[in-house]
Amino acid sequence: MEIPSEALYGIATARAMENYHITGTTLRKYPEFIRALALTKKACAVANRKIGLLPDDVYRAISFACDELIDSEEHHHHFAVDVIQGGAGTSTNMNANEVIANLAARFLGVPIGEYSVVNPNDHVNLCQSTNDAYPSAAKLAVVLKHGIVVEALKKMIVSLRAKGDEFQGIIKMGRTQLQDAVPMTLGQEFHSFAATLEADLTFLERNVDQMYEMNLGGTAIGTSICADEAFSEEAVAALSELTGLPLRSPQDFIEASSSTSSFLLFSNILRRVAVKISKICNDLRLLSSGPRCGFNEINLPAVAPGSSIMPGKINPVIPEVMNQVCFQIMGTDASIAHASEAAQLQLNVFEPLIVYNLLNNMDMMERGLNTLRVKCIDGITANEEVCKKSVENSIGIVTALLPLIGYKKSSAVAKEALATGRPVAEIAATYATVAEINALLHPASMTRARKLDARGVCLETPAASG
Amino acid sequence: MEIPSEALYGIATARAMENYHITGTTLRKYPEFIRALALTKKACAVANRKIGLLPDDVYRAISFACDELIDSEEHHHHFAVDVIQGGAGTSTNMNANEVIANLAARFLGVPIGEYSVVNPNDHVNLCQSTNDAYPSAAKLAVVLKHGIVVEALKKMIVSLRAKGDEFQGIIKMGRTQLQDAVPMTLGQEFHSFAATLEADLTFLERNVDQMYEMNLGGTAIGTSICADEAFSEEAVAALSELTGLPLRSPQDFIEASSSTSSFLLFSNILRRVAVKISKICNDLRLLSSGPRCGFNEINLPAVAPGSSIMPGKINPVIPEVMNQVCFQIMGTDASIAHASEAAQLQLNVFEPLIVYNLLNNMDMMERGLNTLRVKCIDGITANEEVCKKSVENSIGIVTALLPLIGYKKSSAVAKEALATGRPVAEIAATYATVAEINALLHPASMTRARKLDARGVCLETPAASG
Amino acid sequence: MEIPSEALYGIATARAMENYHITGTTLRKYPEFIRALALTKKACAVANRKIGLLPDDVYRAISFACDELIDSEEHHHHFAVDVIQGGAGTSTNMNANEVIANLAARFLGVPIGEYSVVNPNDHVNLCQSTNDAYPSAAKLAVVLKHGIVVEALKKMIVSLRAKGDEFQGIIKMGRTQLQDAVPMTLGQEFHSFAATLEADLTFLERNVDQMYEMNLGGTAIGTSICADEAFSEEAVAALSELTGLPLRSPQDFIEASSSTSSFLLFSNILRRVAVKISKICNDLRLLSSGPRCGFNEINLPAVAPGSSIMPGKINPVIPEVMNQVCFQIMGTDASIAHASEAAQLQLNVFEPLIVYNLLNNMDMMERGLNTLRVKCIDGITANEEVCKKSVENSIGIVTALLPLIGYKKSSAVAKEALATGRPVAEIAATYATVAEINALLHPASMTRARKLDARGVCLETPAASG
Amino acid sequence: MEIPSEALYGIATARAMENYHITGTTLRKYPEFIRALALTKKACAVANRKIGLLPDDVYRAISFACDELIDSEEHHHHFAVDVIQGGAGTSTNMNANEVIANLAARFLGVPIGEYSVVNPNDHVNLCQSTNDAYPSAAKLAVVLKHGIVVEALKKMIVSLRAKGDEFQGIIKMGRTQLQDAVPMTLGQEFHSFAATLEADLTFLERNVDQMYEMNLGGTAIGTSICADEAFSEEAVAALSELTGLPLRSPQDFIEASSSTSSFLLFSNILRRVAVKISKICNDLRLLSSGPRCGFNEINLPAVAPGSSIMPGKINPVIPEVMNQVCFQIMGTDASIAHASEAAQLQLNVFEPLIVYNLLNNMDMMERGLNTLRVKCIDGITANEEVCKKSVENSIGIVTALLPLIGYKKSSAVAKEALATGRPVAEIAATYATVAEINALLHPASMTRARKLDARGVCLETPAASG
Repeated sequence: MEIPSEALYGIATARAMENYHITGTTLRKYPEFIRALALTKKACAVANRKIGLLPDDVYRAISFACDELIDSEEHHHHFAVDVIQGGAGTSTNMNANEVIANLAARFLGVPIGEYSVVNPNDHVNLCQSTNDAYPSAAKLAVVLKHGIVVEALKKMIVSLRAKGDEFQGIIKMGRTQLQDAVPMTLGQEFHSFAATLEADLTFLERNVDQMYEMNLGGTAIGTSICADEAFSEEAVAALSELTGLPLRSPQDFIEASSSTSSFLLFSNILRRVAVKISKICNDLRLLSSGPRCGFNEINLPAVAPGSSIMPGKINPVIPEVMNQVCFQIMGTDASIAHASEAAQLQLNVFEPLIVYNLLNNMDMMERGLNTLRVKCIDGITANEEVCKKSVENSIGIVTALLPLIGYKKSSAVAKEALATGRPVAEIAATYATVAEINALLHPASMTRARKLDARGVCLETPAASG
Repeated sequence: MEIPSEALYGIATARAMENYHITGTTLRKYPEFIRALALTKKACAVANRKIGLLPDDVYRAISFACDELIDSEEHHHHFAVDVIQGGAGTSTNMNANEVIANLAARFLGVPIGEYSVVNPNDHVNLCQSTNDAYPSAAKLAVVLKHGIVVEALKKMIVSLRAKGDEFQGIIKMGRTQLQDAVPMTLGQEFHSFAATLEADLTFLERNVDQMYEMNLGGTAIGTSICADEAFSEEAVAALSELTGLPLRSPQDFIEASSSTSSFLLFSNILRRVAVKISKICNDLRLLSSGPRCGFNEINLPAVAPGSSIMPGKINPVIPEVMNQVCFQIMGTDASIAHASEAAQLQLNVFEPLIVYNLLNNMDMMERGLNTLRVKCIDGITANEEVCKKSVENSIGIVTALLPLIGYKKSSAVAKEALATGRPVAEIAATYATVAEINALLHPASMTRARKLDARGVCLETPAASG
Repeated sequence: MEIPSEALYGIATARAMENYHITGTTLRKYPEFIRALALTKKACAVANRKIGLLPDDVYRAISFACDELIDSEEHHHHFAVDVIQGGAGTSTNMNANEVIANLAARFLGVPIGEYSVVNPNDHVNLCQSTNDAYPSAAKLAVVLKHGIVVEALKKMIVSLRAKGDEFQGIIKMGRTQLQDAVPMTLGQEFHSFAATLEADLTFLERNVDQMYEMNLGGTAIGTSICADEAFSEEAVAALSELTGLPLRSPQDFIEASSSTSSFLLFSNILRRVAVKISKICNDLRLLSSGPRCGFNEINLPAVAPGSSIMPGKINPVIPEVMNQVCFQIMGTDASIAHASEAAQLQLNVFEPLIVYNLLNNMDMMERGLNTLRVKCIDGITANEEVCKKSVENSIGIVTALLPLIGYKKSSAVAKEALATGRPVAEIAATYATVAEINALLHPASMTRARKLDARGVCLETPAASG
Repeated sequence: MEIPSEALYGIATARAMENYHITGTTLRKYPEFIRALALTKKACAVANRKIGLLPDDVYRAISFACDELIDSEEHHHHFAVDVIQGGAGTSTNMNANEVIANLAARFLGVPIGEYSVVNPNDHVNLCQSTNDAYPSAAKLAVVLKHGIVVEALKKMIVSLRAKGDEFQGIIKMGRTQLQDAVPMTLGQEFHSFAATLEADLTFLERNVDQMYEMNLGGTAIGTSICADEAFSEEAVAALSELTGLPLRSPQDFIEASSSTSSFLLFSNILRRVAVKISKICNDLRLLSSGPRCGFNEINLPAVAPGSSIMPGKINPVIPEVMNQVCFQIMGTDASIAHASEAAQLQLNVFEPLIVYNLLNNMDMMERGLNTLRVKCIDGITANEEVCKKSVENSIGIVTALLPLIGYKKSSAVAKEALATGRPVAEIAATYATVAEINALLHPASMTRARKLDARGVCLETPAASG
């Protein structure tokens, strides 16, 4: 097997490149993952030196090599294996071991490929197995990306809150089951979008700690064979220091070797965000439907001519692309669940697929959120007149009379209004005083809870509630 | 282990009832499945008698017993095992063997539970294994239900076609991306609903033959151990005669033993129907949104007061329930696929889950379709005025001018119309003669292809196209 | 519309029974849900009396009626609507309103169906909408079931831990990628099963608080129209007192009206448990494969004769049924996600499907866990000799020499052992002293981390590590 | 908006590149799709010239431009828009229109970007809309890839058949539920793998015709607005001639505009193949488990050192990577179904996601199949001795005695054999003559159906059945 002379990888990587032609996507597409691998390898070297298993010069060379990969993407193209691979990530781990061994060799002035001083297996991979190094690095990669997703989500919430504030004076009809229901403000609608994502933000931040468990030192199956008894603690301590994260060892290394449950949890959380964002995008598309034959309550910014055949048509292309991101995250979450379930005995050999989908989904979520925010949410405007008129014309406001005149009479009023076109207030005047009716039907005050007396009379004046 | 004295099942069934408490749903909920089991057992008895393995009197008793289960549901409650069970259906098969042996015993005047004359294993199950009898009966059950689903689908198509015909004169705006696009008729919309289901009907009918493969005679793993070499052919011939279906033996019995691909195919077809019906229900809910603040193009029949708090509100509850049926079919199709993939070596032990979901989904699809048709589709009315006005007010009709004045000028017309509120025809008159403009903008003729000349002038008179 | 004279439900329920024939499963199958509905209605009555909207006698009658449903299942069969229904649960809510109004009528000596004193809408449903009462009751039902699932999971963990303790002295080969890897104990394997479920137990308990948010008082769309401003707080306080749970109101009632994210979260958690249990069942089936041609390390208890054709065959039917439960939970979780995503504007009308699947999945999980524990886990025995021999024959133990002789020489030893059949220890003696080799290859000590010196020599004596 | 001077695309493409940063994957990754777009545009130009709407010189320029894209990938990098995009593919369609207009301009000696002679909208897109051109091109792309997948599947079947032939003399134990069942040959096992894929091959070939429906001429929503009435027929005829495929127009253009059901069907078929291939890979991994502590019936070729820590370990990495391909196809099929269901009214705006996943899945399937075949299947060897011994030691062969001595006595023999270790034949001799027993227990003849007499005696001599 020939290896290109400029390659920093070695024979194991070359074989893997030969074996796996699946997605056409290599590790280099995921710089956080490469950084995470290098951080992990460096932490192991620190631990091995401390324990006395690694000589100082070898340690220094490995440490330097790892820093090269952490600080820049210059050598990332030597991570050339397809991300979807057999062997539970062995090829990725060996790719890292070989690139680091060769960068270390170069540091020491030794020729590339000469492993007598720094050996990919015996030194870079010392006290490790793919089965601990790979998932540890993968979790770290997720943590590194996590901040970016959280940031995108936070900014989205800020934008939605701002729109909620901007639109708080705009009265419109709320809808249930796509049918006119009762009044609300457009501001309430956007605030509810923000609120629903805030719950996920909290959840996303609260559960990142599930990613902090590093099974370094478990080696092959979690029994720690080949690892010094002090290694696990030292390696995790070193990695915590390098990353500034409160990492920890698992209680049960055997369990940790085959479990992908923290990845699955994260995929679930992401899916839940996707479910909500997709619903928001669906709503935005509905609310902006029209301009003449739809709801037409809001306008999305026009980012492009909408049609190759219909001149002047403006389409909600940004929410549409975000919907697709969400569908993709929902489907690949099922792939992750299936791959998790397919673990056997002491290992889950399908981790590469899990990591691939999770990192892709985080990427798409982050880009999608930022696209949606900048190119859509921030530029939304309201059609205040349309919103207002819909309330004025509505029969649904009859609901507000319920406390005063009861379900049966309210139904009668609604039916008559629909049949005759006469205003609800006018018809309802049969059953109560005009003042009582007007108090209950005051638009703005209908959008929140009010003080009622035992008869159902509203005890607030419209002025107070406006 | 105690068996109730009135029970027609035996010890194997009783143990299974003790072992499996999962769904609370027993086989008796699926009369087609019980019938299919009895038909299968009868066909095997016919074959065994013909080959000379079963004495005449035993054959007659078994045949009588099977007929009891085929012709009436009187004894179906003795099929008392939970549908989700381990053992690849062994408990269901033994339940059938025992009930048939006991009904045969009763026929012969022998006490229930006395198996010396007709033994559940040695006679009723003769030349069979669960691994051939269970999937054969399950396929037959699907075929028996298939006709019911096809019938429901056919009736739905007829109803949609009828609505399409009824609404063919009603001009409305078509929409793409929820934005006003170009004119069409409401009739075209309903015809397209019918057309999309017709494609599935064809597919559903064309592929039922995939269910006709019966691996009877394959016994334990498809090697036909214990079965006489003539058994497979004779049993399938007998079952064909009993059912009137062109059943056949598989080419490869080993393959047939572990493969659930015909079930998976059927689940897929059903899912595709669900995908389309759900889209149709979504459209119906959209088109009937309102009454004041929505599209309001059609009215769904009111089948119930819509709200416990909002008097007079009418909701699209029937499409809503059908949407849920569709989501359920889509999700459980994933369960079926997962269970199919989990086959190991010579058997798929998860067939009971596959059969459970498939029979449930067929049931729900049939009931859902009939509910949707009778309680919704057939009673839909159109708001012709609303539809018509939407076209008149629309800017989207500018598209029709494209052949004549090109994309750029058409865009300019659209922009001006939107900004000024002036009619498209009036603005467009700058670029062509009024006659040319009017010919292109005639509403009804915009809903189909027309003859154009090289300049893009419409060569039809409105009268001709009306 | 005719209502049976013995019925405690009314016209709204009867119409719903007429409209929805989908699953054949009615609310009565879910006693916790009926209890939760009654608790919710009672709490609302308490609040309404306190605020002054409900007279004392009406309150007492409603309260009595609710207690009847809480304390016994006697009247539960009057909850006769199909669980899958349109209208976002309106039919379920009205079913509860009507049964409670009629039980209250009976308490007051008024004829059934005479609503002038206690009206289903104006009194039982006072200050409520389906859109707050239904999801609140549904969440409460999940909480009521939650304890049962948690209990089943706890017992499962205890059983697995016990087996882990029982088997801790049994040495066997661990496997990665189904290939012989390095030694471990059978006890470690079962402890890891327990450990992985403990993580979910913690998660399940930690997140039940997400179910404590009750949007009572939000009414139609979350604007609290028709509800007194004090109602929400009072109703939640009353429900907290009735249930002993720390319930709370949402921050944003609009958001709460359309969001099903707490259900989705719970479905996800359950799915994660299913993913893990399925993996454990797969492992149990693998480890007990045989008896002659498989792994044969453990024996599952025989709960039934395994085959209708293969005498004496014992099959892993209990893990098999549990696998199916898990596949079902995984698939229907996708239905729940889809239904969640399909919320529109101010409501998710597909909550009934979500609740149906979630309650079913909790039921199946609880029953499945208890079945698996009692009928399988607790009776597992080990084939100690088989386990032990597998280590003695294994080449995989060569891994233990890695720290001492390095990857390259270890590979050479492995190859020679495979080719010649000679023991690893013997071949390895070329590269180190017999004492060094033996120390590293001591079976029991290979199952955990050891102290090594800089050369890779094991610093523990076998005695110490035994 | 600045466009690079060397770019062949225009402003619409540039805006789309600015708008969509989602996957980082652009159209150029799918040369078949670009070719299909160019073929479609060329066919439309042919039709337009024939109808008289396109002057000869413009036609020639467009035709030349399309050929450039069909015949080489030289300009494919100008297809630079992210594959996941809003607008139902408008950006992809405009990207094609612009590149073709500019290549046509260059052909005519006009400057790039000068559209007065050949306009992207008015000429290249003439009589078309994204809503017909995009799905038509996408279907064509699937058809172009279809042949490649079919070819890979055919070769896989040939390889599996060859292995089946090679292994036909090797007797082994078949297994159901992972438990020893009855004898079969290893050849039967591999033949069954081939057989199960042959069924899919047939299905895959039979249903490609569902992709032949081209809705060209339907334009915006299927009403054919802007298209000459002769266009559809002419365009499809031209495309048929260019591709040599029997393409056709849809019956209902309105239906065709929003329906993605042919894509969904293809995704389903692909998923079914994935379900089966995944099962085969699972089986290969099981059968090769060991070498000492597993089934060890076959050996997979070693394509790489298996472990970074366990020297000499060989892992089934190729089936593992294929399993992951299958899980991915299964999950993204759910994304495709969800996106299909989300069509609204006259369009499915989520087609780009559907096409993206389908093309990716076809790519991965083809690469995965070829990898699996070349690097695994073709090199599999059998451990004949292990296989043979497993039958000799087995108790499962007792099943063969069933016709002769019945279920009860066979069970007794099995139990005694398990308890005492004595051979089945010896124990069974109590119940029948040695000759009768031996005839039934002859290994090779147990692997197929035999002629029995009424007593269950095998009427074949072992020699005959050998």
